[in-house]
Amino acid sequence: MSSSGLLFLRIIPFIGSAISLILAIVFASLIRKKSRGTDRMKEISDAIFAGSRAYLNQQAKVMFIFFVVLLALFGLMVYFGYLKWPSLPAFATGMGFSLLIGYIGMWISTTSNSRVTYAAKEKGLGEAMNIAFTAAASSGLLLGTVALFDTGFWFNILYWYYGRASVNPVESMQNVVNILITFTIGASFAAFFMRTGGGIYTKAADMGADYVGKVESGLAEDDYRNPATIADNVGDNVGDVGGMKADSLESWVGAIIATEFLGFLAFKGTQLMVNSVILPMVISAGGALASIIAIFIIKLVVSRYKENATVSKLTATTLAGLLITVIGIIGLSFLSIRYVLGLANIRLFFASLGGVLAGFLIGLFTLLYTDSRYRPTRNISESAKSGPATVVVNGLAYGMESALLPALTVIAVMLFSFFISGGSSDFKMGLYGVSLAAVAMLSVTPFAITIDVYGPIADNSGGIASMTEQPPIVRKTTDKLDAVGNTTAAIGKGILIGSAAITALALGQAYFSKIELLNVNVIIDIMRDPKILAGLFTGVMLPFLFTSLLIGAVGRAADKVVIEARKQIKDILAGKSKGDPKAFITIVTRAAQRGIIAPGIMIFVIPVVVGILLGPGGVVALIIGTLLSGFAQAIFMANAGGAMDNAKKKIEEEGRSGTSEHAASVVGDTVGDPLKDTAGPSMNILIKLISVVAIETAVLIADLYGKLWHF
Amino acid sequence: MSSSGLLFLRIIPFIGSAISLILAIVFASLIRKKSRGTDRMKEISDAIFAGSRAYLNQQAKVMFIFFVVLLALFGLMVYFGYLKWPSLPAFATGMGFSLLIGYIGMWISTTSNSRVTYAAKEKGLGEAMNIAFTAAASSGLLLGTVALFDTGFWFNILYWYYGRASVNPVESMQNVVNILITFTIGASFAAFFMRTGGGIYTKAADMGADYVGKVESGLAEDDYRNPATIADNVGDNVGDVGGMKADSLESWVGAIIATEFLGFLAFKGTQLMVNSVILPMVISAGGALASIIAIFIIKLVVSRYKENATVSKLTATTLAGLLITVIGIIGLSFLSIRYVLGLANIRLFFASLGGVLAGFLIGLFTLLYTDSRYRPTRNISESAKSGPATVVVNGLAYGMESALLPALTVIAVMLFSFFISGGSSDFKMGLYGVSLAAVAMLSVTPFAITIDVYGPIADNSGGIASMTEQPPIVRKTTDKLDAVGNTTAAIGKGILIGSAAITALALGQAYFSKIELLNVNVIIDIMRDPKILAGLFTGVMLPFLFTSLLIGAVGRAADKVVIEARKQIKDILAGKSKGDPKAFITIVTRAAQRGIIAPGIMIFVIPVVVGILLGPGGVVALIIGTLLSGFAQAIFMANAGGAMDNAKKKIEEEGRSGTSEHAASVVGDTVGDPLKDTAGPSMNILIKLISVVAIETAVLIADLYGKLWHF
Repeated sequence: MSSSGLLFLRIIPFIGSAISLILAIVFASLIRKKSRGTDRMKEISDAIFAGSRAYLNQQAKVMFIFFVVLLALFGLMVYFGYLKWPSLPAFATGMGFSLLIGYIGMWISTTSNSRVTYAAKEKGLGEAMNIAFTAAASSGLLLGTVALFDTGFWFNILYWYYGRASVNPVESMQNVVNILITFTIGASFAAFFMRTGGGIYTKAADMGADYVGKVESGLAEDDYRNPATIADNVGDNVGDVGGMKADSLESWVGAIIATEFLGFLAFKGTQLMVNSVILPMVISAGGALASIIAIFIIKLVVSRYKENATVSKLTATTLAGLLITVIGIIGLSFLSIRYVLGLANIRLFFASLGGVLAGFLIGLFTLLYTDSRYRPTRNISESAKSGPATVVVNGLAYGMESALLPALTVIAVMLFSFFISGGSSDFKMGLYGVSLAAVAMLSVTPFAITIDVYGPIADNSGGIASMTEQPPIVRKTTDKLDAVGNTTAAIGKGILIGSAAITALALGQAYFSKIELLNVNVIIDIMRDPKILAGLFTGVMLPFLFTSLLIGAVGRAADKVVIEARKQIKDILAGKSKGDPKAFITIVTRAAQRGIIAPGIMIFVIPVVVGILLGPGGVVALIIGTLLSGFAQAIFMANAGGAMDNAKKKIEEEGRSGTSEHAASVVGDTVGDPLKDTAGPSMNILIKLISVVAIETAVLIADLYGKLWHF
Repeated sequence: MSSSGLLFLRIIPFIGSAISLILAIVFASLIRKKSRGTDRMKEISDAIFAGSRAYLNQQAKVMFIFFVVLLALFGLMVYFGYLKWPSLPAFATGMGFSLLIGYIGMWISTTSNSRVTYAAKEKGLGEAMNIAFTAAASSGLLLGTVALFDTGFWFNILYWYYGRASVNPVESMQNVVNILITFTIGASFAAFFMRTGGGIYTKAADMGADYVGKVESGLAEDDYRNPATIADNVGDNVGDVGGMKADSLESWVGAIIATEFLGFLAFKGTQLMVNSVILPMVISAGGALASIIAIFIIKLVVSRYKENATVSKLTATTLAGLLITVIGIIGLSFLSIRYVLGLANIRLFFASLGGVLAGFLIGLFTLLYTDSRYRPTRNISESAKSGPATVVVNGLAYGMESALLPALTVIAVMLFSFFISGGSSDFKMGLYGVSLAAVAMLSVTPFAITIDVYGPIADNSGGIASMTEQPPIVRKTTDKLDAVGNTTAAIGKGILIGSAAITALALGQAYFSKIELLNVNVIIDIMRDPKILAGLFTGVMLPFLFTSLLIGAVGRAADKVVIEARKQIKDILAGKSKGDPKAFITIVTRAAQRGIIAPGIMIFVIPVVVGILLGPGGVVALIIGTLLSGFAQAIFMANAGGAMDNAKKKIEEEGRSGTSEHAASVVGDTVGDPLKDTAGPSMNILIKLISVVAIETAVLIADLYGKLWHF
């Protein structure tokens, strides 16, 4: 390839980033032009914004402490030669961008929530959908902006820096990818805090508010007399928007960087070495472009049936948008691979095709288990007739069952991508194929985030409708919007979980290859080295431990919320007080803050301790064990929670609120909440962060282990 | 060793078996001399017996169909040379003994239940304890009889048969262990059916009876007006007695046989080859002896404080008995290894010591998480104040947390036993050490079963007290007995789960060694062969799938029980009807029968399909994946259920029955029931059965895989 051709490839991520940014700003300003609604709506929206900001500020403080401690540790590692210095600024930008994305996402959501309520009131479902969707699209595109910029920027800096210093292109590229692979840790740590902290926050508030409000006091969802409602709505923003976005950013960036590393290994020393490293960024830029096209088509279609929008029409439109994105990515991936690596390597396109289709399939499986049109959710709502325990037992049962098909899909795509890329004769090429599948799957992120973030916005707008005592028709409209959001968000979540598994696999392979590059002799044979088995076992246990820590934190905080809500609601219903929503914000903010400290420390300490005790091979096993059991747990929890949530909604839609069946289904929903929105999504990050920490400390661990056991 | 010395070693299992049998009969006849109580007590006891027998007969029919199909398949495999013919009769005896143990255990329990009630009424806690304990000891010793006889008999038959036919002792012994290792499949299949079928039965009945009785109708546990109570009490016998015993038999026999195989590999061709194969049976006989001593001491102590027995005294006595057993096993293992393998191999004693201590430790950890004196259970009962959802969330959280320490213990004992046995220089010796740890841990089985079976007997006697409307003091006495039983059963269950993990490991290693003996080239490297990863992933998913199938079956059956109970109780309370307990027996028997078919087929099909698709290496990975995630799931579910059960009991003991807190805790208990008594214990068998099926089909799979993929 000519040097101008290469230069063009190198700036593609910036082009994708810039286009995404411009459109994100355009969309945000479009929303700002809409009316924020009545004074009371503005007031509630402001309260949600204030609560969200207060929480994020607290969160940022805890993150800053961790940041300083980790930066000092990494600094020491740089000093002793265990890490290269560019890892330090990259760590800072990763963490900073992630936090920024969280803040901006929260701002967009809280800016648009009352506008959606007002549009629902004044103009109906179509316009409400339009605003919510535009706001979410702005969020999704901003994520694309950051992901493409962050990876493109550091690649180019390092490429220039090491390309200048060294004459041997292989050696210089090895430096580049070896440093790049340590880069995702900032985004990963930030994502972990945002996701788990936000998850604890949102569900502690939700569980408490729902139980006292709906079950004990017989109030409707978001009733204005329930003072815990504001905290609940804040939770939607900090957990489902902020946390979700940080999580996706981390996945995407992680997949890109791992693929760059594996691409270098596969094409080491060939003409296509640099191209293979750039390819994942080009495919990702293609994903951003495909998302933009789909977003425009949806906006166009939605604007045309403003008057006669229905839930099924809007759902179908959104799903069609997803399909357009997927087809766009497939087409652009083909062109990218054709152009970047040439026709000789076109089999890698099939690997990426497998990834995209697998992501889509996993999304559909999620739908199958959580949509009330299908058997699992219908049966769960049916079992509410025999009380809360059977709801929970059936919910857990379907949740566990639901992990099977996605797991088989991941297994299938892994084997397919590996062998189609020629892995049986060229192992490294097989790995590159598998990780390209992850990148292709994740390139749908801007669109997936759009249809995912849009749910919490709809949820918030419904909260505002209820709290401002709008006529029931307004709440009904926002509930319809929420229903569309639930369906599409389920698919989006499925894609993210599926891609997390493959990304973690790519990261694990990258770690393994990294220690191989260090000339450490590693046998990862389960049956011939008990240390490998010990590492695997530890890995399998981790998701259980983390789930326990997270849902335990939610359970304890929810206890406090319930007790406070009971007291306040009693006074409010008796007319003695107006309630103190801030008390709840304080309770859950503290719980979230405390809840992230222990997992945050453990996630860093465990890979290092395992590494020192069991060696680099044990760490590889740890990564794989965490990945496998974390994947199963993630899907189990997401779908158990989703199905119980929708079973409850089904009962409510059928007008059976207030019955004993409804109470039983609320218990199910409440049990499912911390599973699906706190622990489940955190698994995604856990499985990747373990690899990332291992990569960051690889040289140190190999050295310490060698010194400790081989003297 | 002289041939007379060897002959003595060879008959040791029979000596242990005979002593156990004689004492079991003596104990059973001691109980028969006690009064069966009032006519009403006899009537209820007879109804429970009839229900249990009816269920077991149904179960036996399903098992017979599976037996015939499998026998035919195995017959075909023998015909085509994929299996040796002695596997067929051994399969039959394994299945037959397991079923026999189930029947006799059920008979002993139902024979003693009303006697315990009557003793509690007439003579107080001490004598009630004495009867329940003696009955349970009879059950436990009978298990020892069968385990020792079955393994000793087949070893001696094969040793004689192949010793006669061949002149080369190594070759003849290789034949012996190669066939022996296929022997556990009969016991394993029977255990799977008895455990899962019984588990579905008992919990469907329990969930339904508890929910309608306690929560909806405000009746006490086992209230005579609740017609589902008989089915509930039948369930205790078929699930917690029959299933539990079949499970333990399978574990013990599996561990012995796997160790024999690994012993052969470790000492192949040496003077000690035969001795190393006999050793696990000698250690097991020592375990039976130690159990007998402990049982006698407890009986003596209990008989001395008949008048002034208290729960804490009885619990302490039982725990002291366990400690005596453990110390006895340690001493006898030392003597066995010293005598059988000589002082030069005494380091293997430390491996077995590690196993025994690990079992004891895991038992204590179980206690820590499920006893109401400690924080987890206390906190769960506390969270009942904020409703059922927080109970369940906290219960799940503590359950997941509780898997960590046992897992670390298993990891530690695995590494310790491996390296202390010299595994770093002699790999096979390390494996033998690990599996000796499992055998030593399991040698406590007769005593563990005694303190475990004794719980359901106490439970039954309480049921009879309530149903025959005895004065409250009688129920209080049986409840105390039940409380002792719960504590000791928790420890017994912990030991069984811990040992299941190590046994499965030994079985997995045996499978791996078996395919190595076939000269199949197997690399079990996770990172260098995606098929290994695919096998691991499938394995990790299996426990989720099986849990889903089992608790789903319970949930669906419980739905039916609830609906029927609601109808009947309404009529009973209105004085319109006397109720129809048989209707419940029919519902749950059918549910149990149906519930075991799909898992029963899958457990046989999955290893074969994985083997054909992914090869023998993929099967090894499948075994390990199932083991790791199954272990975590088993402990999580056992302890989550146990803690929620005891949290409810704590609230009842504190006299808060009938409050909303109590209702919340009943929901928690009911959710926990199928986890702890259906799915949890089935994991033990699942993880072993996967290995056992793999071993049985090893030659076939290696052949099919080779033919399919290498042409």
